[in-house]
Amino acid sequence: MIKISFPDGAQREYAPGTTALDIAKSISEGLARKVLAASVNGQVWDLTRPIYGDAQVKLLTWDQKDAKSTFWHSTAHLMAEAIESLFPGVKFWVGPPVENGFYYDIDLGDKHISEDDLRKLEVKMAELAKQNNAYVRKEVPKAEAISYFKEKGDEYKLDLLQNLEDGNITFYTQGAFTDLCRGPHIPHTGFIKAIKLTNIAGAYWKGDEKNKMLTRVYGVSFPSQKELDEYLQMLEEAKKRDHRKLGKELGIYTMDDDVGQGLILWMPNGTVIIEELEKLAKETEEEAGYHRVVTPHIAKESMYLTSGHLPYYADSMYPPMELEGEKYYLRAMNCPHHHKIFAAEPKSYRDLPYRIAEYGTVYRYEQSGELFGLMRVRCLHMNDAHIYCTREQFEQEFRAVNEMYLKYFKIFGVGKYVMRLSLHSPDKLGKKYVNEPELWKETEAMVRQVLIDSNIPYVEVMDEAAFYGPKIDVQIYSVIGREFTLATNQVDFSQGRSFKLQYATADNQSETPLIIHRAPLGTHERFIGFLLEHYAGKLPVWLAPQQVKILPISDKFMDYALDVQKKLRSARVRVSIDDRNEKIGKKIRDTELLKVPYMLVVGEKEMNEGKIAVRRQGKGDLGAIPVDEFVQVISREITERSSGD
Amino acid sequence: MIKISFPDGAQREYAPGTTALDIAKSISEGLARKVLAASVNGQVWDLTRPIYGDAQVKLLTWDQKDAKSTFWHSTAHLMAEAIESLFPGVKFWVGPPVENGFYYDIDLGDKHISEDDLRKLEVKMAELAKQNNAYVRKEVPKAEAISYFKEKGDEYKLDLLQNLEDGNITFYTQGAFTDLCRGPHIPHTGFIKAIKLTNIAGAYWKGDEKNKMLTRVYGVSFPSQKELDEYLQMLEEAKKRDHRKLGKELGIYTMDDDVGQGLILWMPNGTVIIEELEKLAKETEEEAGYHRVVTPHIAKESMYLTSGHLPYYADSMYPPMELEGEKYYLRAMNCPHHHKIFAAEPKSYRDLPYRIAEYGTVYRYEQSGELFGLMRVRCLHMNDAHIYCTREQFEQEFRAVNEMYLKYFKIFGVGKYVMRLSLHSPDKLGKKYVNEPELWKETEAMVRQVLIDSNIPYVEVMDEAAFYGPKIDVQIYSVIGREFTLATNQVDFSQGRSFKLQYATADNQSETPLIIHRAPLGTHERFIGFLLEHYAGKLPVWLAPQQVKILPISDKFMDYALDVQKKLRSARVRVSIDDRNEKIGKKIRDTELLKVPYMLVVGEKEMNEGKIAVRRQGKGDLGAIPVDEFVQVISREITERSSGD
Repeated sequence: MIKISFPDGAQREYAPGTTALDIAKSISEGLARKVLAASVNGQVWDLTRPIYGDAQVKLLTWDQKDAKSTFWHSTAHLMAEAIESLFPGVKFWVGPPVENGFYYDIDLGDKHISEDDLRKLEVKMAELAKQNNAYVRKEVPKAEAISYFKEKGDEYKLDLLQNLEDGNITFYTQGAFTDLCRGPHIPHTGFIKAIKLTNIAGAYWKGDEKNKMLTRVYGVSFPSQKELDEYLQMLEEAKKRDHRKLGKELGIYTMDDDVGQGLILWMPNGTVIIEELEKLAKETEEEAGYHRVVTPHIAKESMYLTSGHLPYYADSMYPPMELEGEKYYLRAMNCPHHHKIFAAEPKSYRDLPYRIAEYGTVYRYEQSGELFGLMRVRCLHMNDAHIYCTREQFEQEFRAVNEMYLKYFKIFGVGKYVMRLSLHSPDKLGKKYVNEPELWKETEAMVRQVLIDSNIPYVEVMDEAAFYGPKIDVQIYSVIGREFTLATNQVDFSQGRSFKLQYATADNQSETPLIIHRAPLGTHERFIGFLLEHYAGKLPVWLAPQQVKILPISDKFMDYALDVQKKLRSARVRVSIDDRNEKIGKKIRDTELLKVPYMLVVGEKEMNEGKIAVRRQGKGDLGAIPVDEFVQVISREITERSSGD
Repeated sequence: MIKISFPDGAQREYAPGTTALDIAKSISEGLARKVLAASVNGQVWDLTRPIYGDAQVKLLTWDQKDAKSTFWHSTAHLMAEAIESLFPGVKFWVGPPVENGFYYDIDLGDKHISEDDLRKLEVKMAELAKQNNAYVRKEVPKAEAISYFKEKGDEYKLDLLQNLEDGNITFYTQGAFTDLCRGPHIPHTGFIKAIKLTNIAGAYWKGDEKNKMLTRVYGVSFPSQKELDEYLQMLEEAKKRDHRKLGKELGIYTMDDDVGQGLILWMPNGTVIIEELEKLAKETEEEAGYHRVVTPHIAKESMYLTSGHLPYYADSMYPPMELEGEKYYLRAMNCPHHHKIFAAEPKSYRDLPYRIAEYGTVYRYEQSGELFGLMRVRCLHMNDAHIYCTREQFEQEFRAVNEMYLKYFKIFGVGKYVMRLSLHSPDKLGKKYVNEPELWKETEAMVRQVLIDSNIPYVEVMDEAAFYGPKIDVQIYSVIGREFTLATNQVDFSQGRSFKLQYATADNQSETPLIIHRAPLGTHERFIGFLLEHYAGKLPVWLAPQQVKILPISDKFMDYALDVQKKLRSARVRVSIDDRNEKIGKKIRDTELLKVPYMLVVGEKEMNEGKIAVRRQGKGDLGAIPVDEFVQVISREITERSSGD
């Protein structure tokens, strides 16, 4: 018998050759109907592949990333089958799963696929899917595979084979389609209930523009029609909430060719958001006992040799500036500068935890093809901090950092989030990971405990820690369900030693502090991009660049409008007057386009009664109230950072 | 007769060959006794040099920079005479005036000058000065000068002569000493009443370390003993107030070899000061209708070719980074980025004046020998802004900028300041200056009028404007009388055009805005350096990194101390507790060294009465008051940004 261990620690015994599908069935028929693939000793396997030894097994269902990838990969094969049936003789290059679906690159020869054809292909795929054809895995010797594709005259698969190691190769067949493929796949096509082919694009073979242009067909698929419908609706909504579109309409940011790609120029409205975020961070950190520092954006090569960022990280940095025989680099991270602040004055255990925060700007080189609005940029602003502490203080400090995340999630109405805890792999100590087995065990356990205690949803990933300690990647979801990687928390046992950071213990020994790297609001760029989508540009009052617009019905009421403006300004409300000679209806419509939360209409009646007619963005007319009362209402909303719902 | 025009616009006629000294005498004997040199058509002349044509004449007395320079230059010759008499046979290289005094570089051969010798030289100089020897100017043909120094065997002066144009050369002689010298000089040595030789240093000939090391003797001199005494006292005081010493003692800033020279790392205490200054600037600018922006620290070469900073300013910039075939530069000024923000959205006259401010960081290359503490650095932070306005709005905008300066001077107790208005020279239009004669006349007149209206002390300097408009350099003086160049205000008619900035006028024409460049707090680096000296490190409460230190008399009172701390923290006061197990006397002494404005001593009596015993830095014991009363007192002091005097 073989011993199968499950993620919850349970163990069961099975006969050798048992498959993950058998195991699922042994647990429940319901589970067996839902399971799509399995993780066996950390690798994703076909459900139907026999297991011959003891193993860690995790059954993967649609909710899990790896299951989705497998599902989409299998759908790519299904699409290829449909294409081959409607366009006989075409040749296939590669067809991987991607973030949201899959694609296949195809050499259509003299044929052509139109938008109409996509609809036909969807119908064909649905028909094939219903046949419940199994994805059958077959190992063949490399030589056999080569002669198979030679016979077919398929130069693309032959090219792929060239780069594979000698020995056995795997083929996958479903229905009439066979492909060279490493797998894994779902058990059969019947799982694929809903398909949408989304796009046709050109793609150079191997991404090289000197090669032939292939046709890339994109698609996405789901285990039910309902999920596809929801997805398509989310896409539609995401288009309306596109941060690039809103960023321009609302005067948030701009870019300029003379400044450079990926370098954001924050316009006045965007700067208000940045400053409100920074204010929140400052207040939060002041209460939590952080100090603030300001450090330069450059440093000499020697600093990054010490930190280890050079040479390994050099490709992600701007190239150096040579001055007086020294190389200076634009910084790609703030930590080394902070370590220098820590080291500038002698420290004792009484100074710890020493928490230093900076509104830091870093520069990272991303290839121009990777740049995307505020999401992938080359200049990043972040509320960054480093905490230097003793081992005894670590758990409490890490807990406090997590609580800060939760506080922010509450403020911004982030209801769904997942933390991804990346652990080390004990057999790679001293190679991929700092050789500190005790510290790894201790901090991983503490980090896990904090996540459990705080009731934070999390997943654990083996062998994805940083070199110097476990890390937590924080994923958040906007209200329309799109996932954003917000930030990373890292534990660091290594840099303290590299920078020779020391503190004197109570009995006057020298010790190296542990370091926590954290930036819970992520980069301003990405977070503001997220907020624009999350709020569809209708930012809560405290964040809104323009909080109030006063709309006088005619010039006659300008003096009164100015009085109202003055009162609001002295309460530090961001307010302006629409003094154009336009009808009130147009003023309201234009202000709504700018997504200003409050409109105050002032006319004869309001002036005589010392009131204003309040319109709330998205809620319409709230009636007339005295000016002072409105000042109180909005001031409270701002101070409380209310979401306005 | 020749026509002499004076700075106040008056004109008088004199016989040709009249000297500036004659003119002074014709005005008053008192003036003639005080005058040291004259500016004749913008050049500084000997008082005794005859004037043969119509001229603009300004009589220069000790208060004027050019008079001081002349006085110190003449004292350098006097020192050379004394040295020649005590150390016969030595050779002289150059002996110029400097910012505070003068020096002479000397080849002593096998001789040596000691500190004691400086005292002997002072006595000898005083004796020579009393002889009232005239400084006599003599023009000689270059060939004659060469043979004179060949005969003396003076290779240094021969080397100087080599680099002079052919034609007449001037010699100056006083008493027994003759020097090759362009002049000008004061009339005679009798003006020099007080002399202090301050320092002996080595200096390579021509500043090149491959050359021989010469001896440099520094000194300073005054028209009365009283002025020398005051100067020496100021030096003594300045030493105590040295911002580098205070910066270290108070944990304000540090530097690090791995980061790079001239790159300041602002420690937590220094960052508090920066943030308070920025808060002041933000509040002030918000009230004045500025918007804030955030822009990257780099831009492509093309931007600086457009602005004209490249190639002319390249030596003051960090070298470029080459990326994807483009050159990127660290910015040395914020204006081009701001112009891009202006240009990002179409503007109409209704949007003007458009005022955008940024907490901007710029990088400038200064030679390592020039770097000095916070005063000369390579990374500069500044509260920078640019105002885009119409010609009609210009005067009001410029006035508002000046008022902002005056507001800041009041807050920081800057009692003495001078604005230096640099004007263009009409004959250099289209060469040194933008060819806009009308705009020059108009804006210079408006700027002058603003200075007069606001009662601001100012001097006018011809031919020192920027290329694109008149500028005002602002000089301020610390309480001990040292001068600091704080900031520059510039009017700009040129960059608007270079960047094709446009706004639509009321009748829908395209116009280029005028631009005002301004940064009234200068750079944070220099300004904080100034403040440390100005306040001798004892910053007013609102600026103090630590505002309050609570000193419990023993551990017994820690809980009470924590209560007091909590109350102060909730009023956002920066407070901490000295919880060391030390005697109260030591706690007070240590806190005084850290220059914390308020110390609150808590013991039995205070605890029982809900009070605290207040000690104010520099004022001693102020008695015991209830905690809440103290919270009110200090909160008001902070809100009002009181100087605490």
